[in-house]
Amino acid sequence: MGALHEGHLALINSSKLANHITVCSIFVNPTQFNNKEDLAKYPRPIDADRQKLEEANCDVLFIPSENQMYDELPRLKFDFGDLETVMEGQFRPGHFNGVGIVVAKLFNIVQPDISYFGQKDYQQFLVISTLVKDLSFQIQLVCHPTIREKDGLALSSRNLRLRFEERAIAPLIYKCLQSAISDFKKGISIERIKEQVSEEINSHAGFKLEYIEFADANTLSLLEGYVKNKKVVICLAAFLGTVRLIDNVIVEI
Amino acid sequence: MGALHEGHLALINSSKLANHITVCSIFVNPTQFNNKEDLAKYPRPIDADRQKLEEANCDVLFIPSENQMYDELPRLKFDFGDLETVMEGQFRPGHFNGVGIVVAKLFNIVQPDISYFGQKDYQQFLVISTLVKDLSFQIQLVCHPTIREKDGLALSSRNLRLRFEERAIAPLIYKCLQSAISDFKKGISIERIKEQVSEEINSHAGFKLEYIEFADANTLSLLEGYVKNKKVVICLAAFLGTVRLIDNVIVEI
Repeated sequence: MGALHEGHLALINSSKLANHITVCSIFVNPTQFNNKEDLAKYPRPIDADRQKLEEANCDVLFIPSENQMYDELPRLKFDFGDLETVMEGQFRPGHFNGVGIVVAKLFNIVQPDISYFGQKDYQQFLVISTLVKDLSFQIQLVCHPTIREKDGLALSSRNLRLRFEERAIAPLIYKCLQSAISDFKKGISIERIKEQVSEEINSHAGFKLEYIEFADANTLSLLEGYVKNKKVVICLAAFLGTVRLIDNVIVEI
Repeated sequence: MGALHEGHLALINSSKLANHITVCSIFVNPTQFNNKEDLAKYPRPIDADRQKLEEANCDVLFIPSENQMYDELPRLKFDFGDLETVMEGQFRPGHFNGVGIVVAKLFNIVQPDISYFGQKDYQQFLVISTLVKDLSFQIQLVCHPTIREKDGLALSSRNLRLRFEERAIAPLIYKCLQSAISDFKKGISIERIKEQVSEEINSHAGFKLEYIEFADANTLSLLEGYVKNKKVVICLAAFLGTVRLIDNVIVEI
């Protein structure tokens, strides 16, 4: 969706290393926003994006108009079942239908052999994995580790909208995820860890936790209590002022 | 789904005339049957099919196993909205989700430039047109006119299951559609025509009308009363003994 940062450019670089031709699409997809204000506010620094892609030696930039992508609204709707009733799906109704449809369109238009996504949107990666598997797209998916600022804040186009004081406390999200891993490994219950993170986040003025969840990293089934022998993803969403931030970490327990 | 007849072979021939390579898939897709008995009874004369395709100079036969197509059941479900709440969609719940998923898989595996479907399954053709448009598949669709026996009966793999006496009265379906067109053009109301067809079909022992509907041929919105300046499809489904038959005709009014 553009507003490119080092996280996106890491995907371009990974693709450059493994492929002959690298295509980047930039399209702020209206059907995946459930909040019109969020859509209107989404940054669109096209000239800067174009320059960054040129510097990264990206071969092709695909930047369609809304009319080219949707000459009319789709009749088809996707339902990803349990995968879209939790976390981002629960708090952003219709979001993953919009993501699924637009990614299927981009796959069919661009016809890539390999497609690169960032781990920051982990649930989105699982949704797209399901899309690829269930519809037999002949595409290999790569989930690239989240790129972070030195203080741990996950890179996001939305970070540009943080005020100075907000930016200063934003790294708390990753700090909480790190201590969640540590407590989880010590054998503290999931409920207790969620309580602690909630208290910590909400104790800072302007910060409001939306959710922290522990889920099976393959199926995204939510976990409770104590867990063993599993790949677990810990996902967090919080508002900092009016800006909604998400992050996640994966831990083998 | 195999059990090939002259209707399928007409699709093969059309493709042969326009393309370098013609691929036929045969896969009796379990997820589009809402009736297990219907699935079990579906004819699978593979050797005869293979021979017919060889005689038609079909270049490739793709005949995957159930496990190859579904190593697990899909999580993703399709919802085609109004397009699947009427007629075949209403009487075969889940049918068009199953059709949509398997056709998307076949499109992604085979990657055709042009894909041929028969008009007999007109609603299916509209569902697949929606799939192609909404997901931007780079595929051109061709709707081939229904091929009929000399007495008017639309060719169908299910005709093989009709008993001798049933086969004798089966052409009544097309006769009713022909008189429906004629009455429609005379200005008789849709309700009156539906009544007449229902009475005619149900007056024959073993015949039971499931529906006859008049619909906008582009959107499949059901029509009532009197209609002008429209492309209309008249669709009919009926049971003849235990065999369910469908047919349709298109009329510009």
